[in-house]
Amino acid sequence: MDYIISNRMKDVSGSMIRELFKLAKDPAMIKFGGGNPSEEAFPVKEIAEISERAFKEQAVGMLQYGLSEGYTPLRDTLKKRLSEEGIDFEKNDILIVSGAQQAADLSSKVLLNEGDGVIAEDPSFVGCLNTFRAYGAKLYGIPLKEDGMDLEVLEKTLEENRNIRLMYIIPSFQNPTGFTTTLEKRRAILDLAKKYDIIIFEDNPYGELRFKGEDVKTIKSMDEDSRVIYAGSFSKVMAPAFRVGFMVLPKPLMQKMTVAKQTTDVHTTVLFQHICNEYMTSYDYASHIKRVRELYKHKAELMVSSMEKYFHPDVKFSYPDGGLFVMAFLPEGMDSQVFVKKGIDNLVACVPQVAFAVDQSKTYSGFRMNYSSESDENIVKGVRILGQMTYDALKK
Amino acid sequence: MDYIISNRMKDVSGSMIRELFKLAKDPAMIKFGGGNPSEEAFPVKEIAEISERAFKEQAVGMLQYGLSEGYTPLRDTLKKRLSEEGIDFEKNDILIVSGAQQAADLSSKVLLNEGDGVIAEDPSFVGCLNTFRAYGAKLYGIPLKEDGMDLEVLEKTLEENRNIRLMYIIPSFQNPTGFTTTLEKRRAILDLAKKYDIIIFEDNPYGELRFKGEDVKTIKSMDEDSRVIYAGSFSKVMAPAFRVGFMVLPKPLMQKMTVAKQTTDVHTTVLFQHICNEYMTSYDYASHIKRVRELYKHKAELMVSSMEKYFHPDVKFSYPDGGLFVMAFLPEGMDSQVFVKKGIDNLVACVPQVAFAVDQSKTYSGFRMNYSSESDENIVKGVRILGQMTYDALKK
Repeated sequence: MDYIISNRMKDVSGSMIRELFKLAKDPAMIKFGGGNPSEEAFPVKEIAEISERAFKEQAVGMLQYGLSEGYTPLRDTLKKRLSEEGIDFEKNDILIVSGAQQAADLSSKVLLNEGDGVIAEDPSFVGCLNTFRAYGAKLYGIPLKEDGMDLEVLEKTLEENRNIRLMYIIPSFQNPTGFTTTLEKRRAILDLAKKYDIIIFEDNPYGELRFKGEDVKTIKSMDEDSRVIYAGSFSKVMAPAFRVGFMVLPKPLMQKMTVAKQTTDVHTTVLFQHICNEYMTSYDYASHIKRVRELYKHKAELMVSSMEKYFHPDVKFSYPDGGLFVMAFLPEGMDSQVFVKKGIDNLVACVPQVAFAVDQSKTYSGFRMNYSSESDENIVKGVRILGQMTYDALKK
Repeated sequence: MDYIISNRMKDVSGSMIRELFKLAKDPAMIKFGGGNPSEEAFPVKEIAEISERAFKEQAVGMLQYGLSEGYTPLRDTLKKRLSEEGIDFEKNDILIVSGAQQAADLSSKVLLNEGDGVIAEDPSFVGCLNTFRAYGAKLYGIPLKEDGMDLEVLEKTLEENRNIRLMYIIPSFQNPTGFTTTLEKRRAILDLAKKYDIIIFEDNPYGELRFKGEDVKTIKSMDEDSRVIYAGSFSKVMAPAFRVGFMVLPKPLMQKMTVAKQTTDVHTTVLFQHICNEYMTSYDYASHIKRVRELYKHKAELMVSSMEKYFHPDVKFSYPDGGLFVMAFLPEGMDSQVFVKKGIDNLVACVPQVAFAVDQSKTYSGFRMNYSSESDENIVKGVRILGQMTYDALKK
């Protein structure tokens, strides 16, 4: 039988990272390629404790069908916390989703027609780029600088493409670059969204993982005319396998988004919503976050200082202020995909920039390195191996 | 700000059942309206036990990112069990989904273009009808009889509408009618699917809940040319809030469906997949299923025998062989929506057929009654109240 694949999915292929991982199965491989949070960061004891108590005291509530909008106590806690960060819940509401990836899926379902344009930082998180592609959206990549998108290219793109409906942005500790958009640029981006009447999808999975510098206000907190959809996640502060995230939505979008959620997976698992809520309200959540930040600060410093020591000086990178990633750039014109493949041969896995590119037919010089998954020893060892490779590559 | 809703979602509204529930909030309300499994059916002790052990012995595996395809031990167990029911895993594969609802979502995403036709039994499960609507599919309802769809109308519809790509069917203990499609009709439906080269989506959430009569082979087990997608669920045999279901897919569809899963919610929660697997492999799962069947048999018998006793003889219904529902039909021409609203005034909630109809602009005479959620006492009491109402309605 011949299967006809929908137009929207025909050209969407899996994440290149997964293909790389198949090459990288050797247990001796040093893993800078993934995006997994550190296993040391999971509050295992507390999770087990809350779970045990929940099954003892309110099993039925944890097991029976839940509300599509989400578990009410968690929604209330999030509203309280996010209000303190300046988000206005007179004008907004909270929808719990099965991981922030679902926030992109539901937003696309509700807001995008096939052929509609979506602005994305370039490079950007491939998971969400593929979500937009899976709804037949046309992606417009805007070069991402250390301080945020290139505003000139952004405005020109908006001006020339009136089919653009949505802008996808990870303003803090971006994946894959680790870059953080400055407050000035966030304001300018919001102004442009207003001028061209588009919606901003602000994805902030790493927001709580700042280990350097000062917090920068979220775009959502400056959103006066309700054009920002904000997505947060418990994957990096609790556990990814919980699949619990949340969307802050302008109230007029709440009903349609909830219907979209209903038709997609009915509701998010109740136990894990309960654990997130309990941990935030009855435990010392602040200390936990502090501990996770210190862990990542240590690992990031170790990786970046090793890169300073071992990498050829023509390879550029910058110290991230938070999150899980640092991106290194070979001199312009060099293809990092060749470099990454050689790295895998040498038992160090990174991800080439092309995996995160809007246009995957070009070549790029960057490669993403993750510092949250490996031991200190392997961080130093892996960077040393890559460093030797940079000298080899730049000698030729 | 004006929000432009996508064409595909513009006309999809929430399930009417939810709206009814808002009316039905009175704690004294007798709840025949929902589709919740009985809380007595949850294996709470075992779930708590497996969960506790998992967090003790393999916490990281339960908390870290999992595979989009699903938890390998669960996939293997399901393959083994379903092979015994005649499904061929040389030609098929298993994708774990976040509840069977997601099976419909992913199938639509991968297989349907806007405007493509989808055949559905009429009435049918509104959750999945809305999923197809949410991808811009055009629904064609085929009247459902006690032994399955009207084959004449089915063939005529297929003949006249060459845009039809998919057929959605719940062959066993259908929601909302409780009807089971006979083996002969299953064969005929598969033959028609072959003749018109369409895909069958066989939804079987209640398959294990047979409490009367003999098992009928699944359509998937007769699927020689790999045109059947089969969806199963743990919602009714373990717990709905697990959000764990599975799809049996022809192998050529596995890769695209997995990509669609990735872009939707990355993967299904690992702990609940592990609990389902542990319970099936290390506990007496067969006894559990037997106990659940006995519970539902008792409740179904109580409801139907009470209906025989209290309902006006012109109201028709049939004893289901399994599942959670029985549907009663007022004499043709009567609008069950009026009847159901009156029921809510009298503190008994049911769901009118129109909520499950492909064409919701017409009036229908049926109403769905659920027997799994209420106490024995309330089942008798609620049926007695509705019975009195049937006499009142038919007197006029």
